[in-house]
Amino acid sequence: MTQLIESVPNISEGRRPEVIAACADAVRSVPGVTLLDIKPDEAHNRTVLTLIGHPEGLQTAILALYEAALATIDLRQHTGEHPRMGAVDVCPFIPIRGTTMADCVSLAKQVAASVAERWQIPVFLYEEAASASHRRNLADIRRGEFEGLPAKLHLPEWQPDFGGPAPHASFGATVIGAREALVAYNINLNTGSLAVAKAVAKAVRGAVGGLAHVKAMGVMSSDGRAQVSMNLVNTGKTPIYRVFELVRAEAARFGVTPSGSEIIGLVPQQALLDSAAYYLQIENWDPALVLENRVLEHV
Amino acid sequence: MTQLIESVPNISEGRRPEVIAACADAVRSVPGVTLLDIKPDEAHNRTVLTLIGHPEGLQTAILALYEAALATIDLRQHTGEHPRMGAVDVCPFIPIRGTTMADCVSLAKQVAASVAERWQIPVFLYEEAASASHRRNLADIRRGEFEGLPAKLHLPEWQPDFGGPAPHASFGATVIGAREALVAYNINLNTGSLAVAKAVAKAVRGAVGGLAHVKAMGVMSSDGRAQVSMNLVNTGKTPIYRVFELVRAEAARFGVTPSGSEIIGLVPQQALLDSAAYYLQIENWDPALVLENRVLEHV
Repeated sequence: MTQLIESVPNISEGRRPEVIAACADAVRSVPGVTLLDIKPDEAHNRTVLTLIGHPEGLQTAILALYEAALATIDLRQHTGEHPRMGAVDVCPFIPIRGTTMADCVSLAKQVAASVAERWQIPVFLYEEAASASHRRNLADIRRGEFEGLPAKLHLPEWQPDFGGPAPHASFGATVIGAREALVAYNINLNTGSLAVAKAVAKAVRGAVGGLAHVKAMGVMSSDGRAQVSMNLVNTGKTPIYRVFELVRAEAARFGVTPSGSEIIGLVPQQALLDSAAYYLQIENWDPALVLENRVLEHV
Repeated sequence: MTQLIESVPNISEGRRPEVIAACADAVRSVPGVTLLDIKPDEAHNRTVLTLIGHPEGLQTAILALYEAALATIDLRQHTGEHPRMGAVDVCPFIPIRGTTMADCVSLAKQVAASVAERWQIPVFLYEEAASASHRRNLADIRRGEFEGLPAKLHLPEWQPDFGGPAPHASFGATVIGAREALVAYNINLNTGSLAVAKAVAKAVRGAVGGLAHVKAMGVMSSDGRAQVSMNLVNTGKTPIYRVFELVRAEAARFGVTPSGSEIIGLVPQQALLDSAAYYLQIENWDPALVLENRVLEHV
């Protein structure tokens, strides 16, 4: 089976097209790597790139991206609404096909070591690659931002995993790690009541007693329906169908039912196939039953 | 998007391993074509090959298969339980990804013309490629089998579409065409009553008032459950979830419910994704939302 890992590096530039193009070209030139998406955000002055490829190609592509960002982005000149501490601010690796979380942790550490060694950039490992539990969360690592780095890097509990102790003058520092694919998923309810959406969101939200790996809030959709807006951060352990069925059950106490749902961005095939297998009660379910998966195995 | 067509040629040899190997090697050697499966059947003295590839590669592979079968199979020596009229008995083309039924009809006609021209083998076009409605059905074309060919080929309504009028002395004649992917799908019921399975099968069977594109019969599964055993011959028009929900509804009148289902063989990704989208009520459903599909587009 072709090994595939996804990476979603965020760079601290969302305004200068020539810088975004230089960073995109750096990853695009690597064989076996596909640049799926580029999302610049002017207000945040930040761009999210989505790449996918086999592990070796991806390593080459991400290092080329760091080199391009180093050459074109100076954090001393950077302003924007989004918190940031480096020119490549954060870079997660995500197992997609024929690869494990351990493969992604290993890739994150290899890339981190190279970034520190080649360009003297301090690197923090986060999420599944974190070296301590207080360093798993991106927001905690990034607190203080670029401007606070000189002080933060001298704290014993914030020594970087690679490089340091001084930040890179123009680049700052960077956060590299491994995590599961994130699915942004909204369920619309057949009511205009925001209160119902908030109550249902609270019931399914993992942090307050709901489903693990689910972040949820109640909002109003643009067409006036109450909406449970969610991030599903591990659809392997907490599958989409379980979330959908719990939302249905919690909404029922208000006499409300889902009127539809929306996938925002991209969803791994497996997350949807698992839901088909659940509802169709397939007893011999195996992703190898899917014709196209047999083709990919042979590519 | 990578163009993919499937082909499922049936050859009239299921006993001599060296002949089956020669036919498999002929298709395996073609770049861009994957031999997914080889299913020899001794009693039928027949082997089903499953291939997938881009249209040009597939054309080359299928012609190589005809050449290998012509060199190794003599229908005058062939006996077996399955009806047959040629060394390659039947060869359908099936649109899988980035290809239409029209592409498959076109490919079928090109292959048919080459087979007739190169080796003087009479070819009938069937299903979506058929030249007349009485020639759509494989069983009608094959009636009389190899032994009846000399007489049949002289009937005005059974002139071959390419080649003829005489059958090839050792090869016989062949049937080439285009059809939708077939999904073999069984739903098990939480009852041991064969009568219930037969009643539910009758209710969903297209030919007697049920769902179009569904062939169904009631049988007993090997573990003693009543089973609705089906061939879904067009899951684009009659999707799996609709079949499952109708079986559920028809079983309910007997106080019976599905206890599970089974996919036999391979299923196109789209057939399962459509079911996930139905049950999850995805409003913005589009196969391009699936991460892996974006990768395939770039391959």
